[in-house]
Amino acid sequence: MLRPGDRLSSVRQASQQQGLSITTVVRAYELLESCGVIESHPQSGYFVRAQFGRDAAASLQASASAQAAPAEPDRSQPLPVSAEVDVSRHVLATLKSIHQNDAIPLGSPYPDPTLFPARRISQYNSAILRSGGPLGVLDDLPPGHPDLIRQIVRRHLETGLSVGPGDVVITVGATEAINLCLQAVAKAGDTIAVESPTFYAMLHAIERLGMRAIEIPTDPRSGMDVAALKKIMQSQPVAACMVMPNFQNPLGFEMPEENKRQLVELGARYNMPIIENGVCNELYFGTAHPSVLKAYDKRGIVLYCSSFSKSLTSAYRIGWTLPGRYREQVEKLKFLNTLSTSTLPQRAIAAYLTAGGYDRHLRRLRRSLQQRCDIMSAFVGRFFPAGTRITRPAGGYVLWIELPAAIDSMALYRQALAAGITIAPGRLFSTSDAYRSFIRMNYSYNWTPQIELAIRRLGEMLAAMLE
Amino acid sequence: MLRPGDRLSSVRQASQQQGLSITTVVRAYELLESCGVIESHPQSGYFVRAQFGRDAAASLQASASAQAAPAEPDRSQPLPVSAEVDVSRHVLATLKSIHQNDAIPLGSPYPDPTLFPARRISQYNSAILRSGGPLGVLDDLPPGHPDLIRQIVRRHLETGLSVGPGDVVITVGATEAINLCLQAVAKAGDTIAVESPTFYAMLHAIERLGMRAIEIPTDPRSGMDVAALKKIMQSQPVAACMVMPNFQNPLGFEMPEENKRQLVELGARYNMPIIENGVCNELYFGTAHPSVLKAYDKRGIVLYCSSFSKSLTSAYRIGWTLPGRYREQVEKLKFLNTLSTSTLPQRAIAAYLTAGGYDRHLRRLRRSLQQRCDIMSAFVGRFFPAGTRITRPAGGYVLWIELPAAIDSMALYRQALAAGITIAPGRLFSTSDAYRSFIRMNYSYNWTPQIELAIRRLGEMLAAMLE
Repeated sequence: MLRPGDRLSSVRQASQQQGLSITTVVRAYELLESCGVIESHPQSGYFVRAQFGRDAAASLQASASAQAAPAEPDRSQPLPVSAEVDVSRHVLATLKSIHQNDAIPLGSPYPDPTLFPARRISQYNSAILRSGGPLGVLDDLPPGHPDLIRQIVRRHLETGLSVGPGDVVITVGATEAINLCLQAVAKAGDTIAVESPTFYAMLHAIERLGMRAIEIPTDPRSGMDVAALKKIMQSQPVAACMVMPNFQNPLGFEMPEENKRQLVELGARYNMPIIENGVCNELYFGTAHPSVLKAYDKRGIVLYCSSFSKSLTSAYRIGWTLPGRYREQVEKLKFLNTLSTSTLPQRAIAAYLTAGGYDRHLRRLRRSLQQRCDIMSAFVGRFFPAGTRITRPAGGYVLWIELPAAIDSMALYRQALAAGITIAPGRLFSTSDAYRSFIRMNYSYNWTPQIELAIRRLGEMLAAMLE
Repeated sequence: MLRPGDRLSSVRQASQQQGLSITTVVRAYELLESCGVIESHPQSGYFVRAQFGRDAAASLQASASAQAAPAEPDRSQPLPVSAEVDVSRHVLATLKSIHQNDAIPLGSPYPDPTLFPARRISQYNSAILRSGGPLGVLDDLPPGHPDLIRQIVRRHLETGLSVGPGDVVITVGATEAINLCLQAVAKAGDTIAVESPTFYAMLHAIERLGMRAIEIPTDPRSGMDVAALKKIMQSQPVAACMVMPNFQNPLGFEMPEENKRQLVELGARYNMPIIENGVCNELYFGTAHPSVLKAYDKRGIVLYCSSFSKSLTSAYRIGWTLPGRYREQVEKLKFLNTLSTSTLPQRAIAAYLTAGGYDRHLRRLRRSLQQRCDIMSAFVGRFFPAGTRITRPAGGYVLWIELPAAIDSMALYRQALAAGITIAPGRLFSTSDAYRSFIRMNYSYNWTPQIELAIRRLGEMLAAMLE
């Protein structure tokens, strides 16, 4: 058992003792160093940092032992029937509890805000304010501020999506984008296909408009089962489909190219609009920006929605949509819904994007998220009871965790909250109670003894519940 | 005929020549001086300013001659049937034309932004940004930022409305507030009672939700005819009523106390929610803040909506609602619609209101608006053809102008736009074509030779159309 100040086995020793490759051990040590669990002393090797407890060292083993990692959840098997949606009150209550209790934010739906270049964006804000001249609301009538639109188009072009300024409508975050797109393509009472589990923002949009949701079987590695969706569509009318093909919240998958292509083809064949949520697209762990459904869309049936809330700044509430053939309708709905989007945040983000530095920020952000994902996965494997399953995200900032079937995650949520820890219970992500024993955990926060302790406490609560 | 540099008659002479009281002439001279048409030379009297044309001097007569002022429009007589609403595309096209053509903004729906204390609010913005710390979106989940809510409550209490922080929900401008409130109280296909003419934001909310509008006879001095509304309600179901009881856009009236009381009583008796638009309440020309319907509301059926867009800053897009008994539902809908309102503008406005100076700004703003109202009314009376009628606003920043019946205001709108002048044609303010020969003009802009010329050009266009 290692204690603070203890020297770790050398990479070679650890490799031999654990039967792991040198590369795996090096990666594990780097990880633990980057999050402050251990520190490197030149010429002497790695040591357990003083402020960390004994479990930090133990976690080394967990982290390095890929063999011991918990299994992944199975492909979901939702019932093939549509349902009314009524999740928003649970979600709002959960989000408020996260904030009001100043609790450990494992239930937060946003990346750690300290990962964002807040100071630099602030500087652009201030510069715009100093440059004087009244901010006119008419400057930013839908579709939105021209500079921001140009920057968004430029970024899409750089990642291989062929769009022009006339394709973009700026919105109040992706939330409004998704709402407007759904209203443009379907009406109250219609059935909308979603992943299972699905990000609750999708369910909110359906709830707001009095539509029904039908959940489609979804694989934690490859996303929505396109064949299953097709089968459903052959048996009942589906007005639209809402998906998050990259780094889905909560599963973290990146849909394979072939599946993306098939999904868009299916939509085109049945004339079924597809609302694509791309808010996590910049948060990839792989080597290249993921492709988007929109890139396969020859007929304008994909309505792409995204925002800067997960990659640059959450508080500014700036999103956008590429509504394809529904552009005119979406622009009109934007005008009806909120008239225009706040001017200053649009201009500040446009100035930031114009000046450059966003890609450098994103590279750092992705590196941090991937490291923190590995660390939290390791600690969950270490402290959570046997039978726990966790996803292997390809990007994003959340883990989806399947607890032993006897666990009621709402009970865990309440008990954790009383102990100053928040989690997102599974029922927020479905119209059914299929995810009663699931939770979503946000791994984006800087690894601290407090977070480590929170994971351990959750593990203890779960153990007690299982007794 | 006076020319630039000419000396005006003395007050006493003008009084005798025109048969007006000394007070009236003094007020007229002050007005013309405050807008730069004439200037006072100590010991010598008043002179026509050099950069003004001959008509500026002529306007003196128009301004001073109350007898010659055009008549007011009659009480409206809309048909007592509900109608589908489809005005938003006209409105969006009009607003875009106002901006894109850099035209004389007589059609603008906002007060002249140079009347707002942009620099001071900017300073609070910058100070908040400098104070550091990431802006967290969870800080401002519905109902909104606590500091801003406290300031809004304080101001309501100061004007005699008894509300607490728990009564307020912050929104993206009054636009979103009105949308959320309407969605909370009625459903698609329902009939909503509105003034005739009505502010198009009300019609937008109805259109967005697929409801129908029924227009109620409205007096340019006293507002919606409550007895006529009652009669309608006895013959058909009316799900809700949307009114702007103070300084209505476009009529400018302030509903008498007794009418306000009767309207709320009617709503209470029939259990009909009333959505009250209070966006112009701070822009009164009288001596005291106008009362609100909400003050008569004992049963929580009035949903009060307002914003800072007409009195402090248009571009920040910050509004609020006091949804009465529908509070929980409205807060949930806010969450579903846009999640939260942008953080920085909320905090900047809260800081401005906390620091003080808003009332001083408002006093100046009201004085400017009242003077500019008098000036534009005088010039319209001077240059528009006989038979023109104009309102006598009790506050706000727009005139509603009834042109001779032969005029098609859409034709005037197009012709004016080609000449670099915007107006708001009457059809934006109704589901019917009852206001085919009406226009709304914004009088809030600083009086310049360009604006004077625009009024004259409009008069010439009208004269040509009548030939």
